[in-house]
Amino acid sequence: MKLFKGNIIYTKNKESFEIMENGFILEENGHVQDIGLDLVEKYPETEVVDYSGHLLIPGFVDLHFHAVQYGNLGIGLDEELLDWLNTYTFKEEEKFSDLPYAESIFKEAIKDIIQSGTTRIVFFSSIHEGATRLLIDLCEKHNLSAYVGKVNMDRNASEGLIESPKASYEITKRLVEETEQAIITPRFVPSCTKDLMTSLGELAQKGYPVQTHISETENEIEWVKSLHPEAKNYLDVYDQCGLVTDRTILAHCVFCTDDEKEVIKYRGAYVAHCPAANFNLTSGIMNVKDYINKGIKVGLGTDVGAGNTPSIRNIIVESIKMSKVNQMMHRDKDVLSFSEAFYLATKGGGSYFGNVGSFEVGYEFDLLVIKPDDLSLSRGINCLEQLQRFVYAGHNDMIIESYCQGKKLKAY
Amino acid sequence: MKLFKGNIIYTKNKESFEIMENGFILEENGHVQDIGLDLVEKYPETEVVDYSGHLLIPGFVDLHFHAVQYGNLGIGLDEELLDWLNTYTFKEEEKFSDLPYAESIFKEAIKDIIQSGTTRIVFFSSIHEGATRLLIDLCEKHNLSAYVGKVNMDRNASEGLIESPKASYEITKRLVEETEQAIITPRFVPSCTKDLMTSLGELAQKGYPVQTHISETENEIEWVKSLHPEAKNYLDVYDQCGLVTDRTILAHCVFCTDDEKEVIKYRGAYVAHCPAANFNLTSGIMNVKDYINKGIKVGLGTDVGAGNTPSIRNIIVESIKMSKVNQMMHRDKDVLSFSEAFYLATKGGGSYFGNVGSFEVGYEFDLLVIKPDDLSLSRGINCLEQLQRFVYAGHNDMIIESYCQGKKLKAY
Repeated sequence: MKLFKGNIIYTKNKESFEIMENGFILEENGHVQDIGLDLVEKYPETEVVDYSGHLLIPGFVDLHFHAVQYGNLGIGLDEELLDWLNTYTFKEEEKFSDLPYAESIFKEAIKDIIQSGTTRIVFFSSIHEGATRLLIDLCEKHNLSAYVGKVNMDRNASEGLIESPKASYEITKRLVEETEQAIITPRFVPSCTKDLMTSLGELAQKGYPVQTHISETENEIEWVKSLHPEAKNYLDVYDQCGLVTDRTILAHCVFCTDDEKEVIKYRGAYVAHCPAANFNLTSGIMNVKDYINKGIKVGLGTDVGAGNTPSIRNIIVESIKMSKVNQMMHRDKDVLSFSEAFYLATKGGGSYFGNVGSFEVGYEFDLLVIKPDDLSLSRGINCLEQLQRFVYAGHNDMIIESYCQGKKLKAY
Repeated sequence: MKLFKGNIIYTKNKESFEIMENGFILEENGHVQDIGLDLVEKYPETEVVDYSGHLLIPGFVDLHFHAVQYGNLGIGLDEELLDWLNTYTFKEEEKFSDLPYAESIFKEAIKDIIQSGTTRIVFFSSIHEGATRLLIDLCEKHNLSAYVGKVNMDRNASEGLIESPKASYEITKRLVEETEQAIITPRFVPSCTKDLMTSLGELAQKGYPVQTHISETENEIEWVKSLHPEAKNYLDVYDQCGLVTDRTILAHCVFCTDDEKEVIKYRGAYVAHCPAANFNLTSGIMNVKDYINKGIKVGLGTDVGAGNTPSIRNIIVESIKMSKVNQMMHRDKDVLSFSEAFYLATKGGGSYFGNVGSFEVGYEFDLLVIKPDDLSLSRGINCLEQLQRFVYAGHNDMIIESYCQGKKLKAY
């Protein structure tokens, strides 16, 4: 049992921040047991971890990250999605049959992710079982809470990345049955036959987690339409296979129709909004407020390597920018506010992991300790302004400590 | 005379990079005297500064930065331009009558700017002569090459920021006559009476440098139209006063008409493209390629504090993003490439300072030494990919040294 002292700032709901200067959070067994100003009196003799003058915020949650693309981070972003996949991505992913190579990339990725303030993450690995298990082990070792997906793909990829539907299914089944961190990961419709998706859907119906991509670019949607004229729309291909559940993360959703949004909402699936990637690959402008207003669950994703940053802090800024671009394009006055974007980055995506992303009592204790810059301190700006400055213009080295489920994350 | 060794990469023209692995640059008296692979043989006995394994690139040039807004960096960006000016900016600028306060902000700003790899910069200061002179002195002390503008404004601002047109003109006249780094800086049309702009225009016609804002938002343009029904357009107000010369920097130019672009080109004025600020204040999507294709001179600006980063490296990425958004909005296939954006950040803006932003013989020696990340080295990616990774996903601490005119910049 420990008391953490500092300037606490978080979002219970997306409309506004909860701010408590010189407040305390009582942590016990990796959970928030209490929060308030008078906790030293209430819990005497309890050890105080004193972060006075620092911001205490929930850890960031990244719902979409291709661990195997970290080596290519920032490279080749003059291309569009389908060209980029063929030129850069597939070639790189083939290399992950080689475990020492996989380890060299994953270690650097995890270091960068933790230094960026992410405490919870949902990974795409490659098609390889070995690399997938390795990544799960490395995350555990660093106290990074992660789901890790062995990618399923049995059509339209380079030779080294094509599996048989049977083998692909069986490895996935073994992984989800044996490890809590495994997640069913059909890459996207063009990469998976309906046979494969149907067998994975049967697994999904047992309650195992699922992630995939959907409606990232218009070319991709046309392709799916030509592959599946029998389906009502892109989402319907997944839905017919049983892959859309309340444990499903749908990455991108840039061009989803109202019909698709209705099904996403009805199934209780999650949207991973990845604005940096959508900008970089000239995919499209996602109207994230429309999803939020419809009551759909939304979190943020870096989408490394199409996204050029492993930092959810940067993605908060990108999500606001993209919403402003949407406003400029459609004269839509409903723009993502700073508190809304922060909510998506913490409690929004965090709810995929349970009670995560807030300091309400009963929530898991995921914490970032932020040291404000010298100028913030000398100018005496308030906690919310300090947070804005950290998010919009800060650096990773302002994050001096991070905890996940009460345990310190280890960047090295 | 010194030989600098490393992996040299720069742009002579915007279409492509010049790349020389294990090359040498001969520096003498702050200028590039030679560049090549065999310079040790050609210039024996010359001291070699060995940056083998590092990238050697030209220093970044920032054509638009409000030094007095650095304290507000990242704060209040949920607002639009005119609200943001009134709520945050003007109040902050009033404080710069206080020199110790000014020094505390400028010092932190210069540190951050140098750490971000900027070697040349064009500053807006405040209306205050003292703060303006102080900023000029501090830049000199740190070897940062800068133009610094005492802001002129005699209407439509808070009381503490209103000057008489006569005093405003006279201080400016004194500054440009006494110091090479001073630049005439009418804030923007709504802040300046025609009397003031006309007197400043007479100074401009003597060849002194000028900077101002133009066509950043649609509301602002409407306002200018209502203030100056006699003018053909926004630019025409400046042009009638003699303020548009080949030494003039026009910040933003988001909504300039073809007529205005023709005059900008004819006068040989510069455009400072500030994409981060335009995104943040929901100003508009600038079509930078159109200016480039028309042969107009363009450089990049961070526009701190409306821009949320002092790093031109980040602005390269933002400029490409904005060009991609323009593509998505208008199905315009002509997108700013990586080499074009890099060119704008170096030689494009650099030409405002003379022969700056390239390693061609005769250019001033402005150099950044970049240490590639471990993964770039272990994966053996090429120099161009290393540069992409640095620009898209790097950190300031990869810049291990920077030079301006042959002298090391001092961040502290």
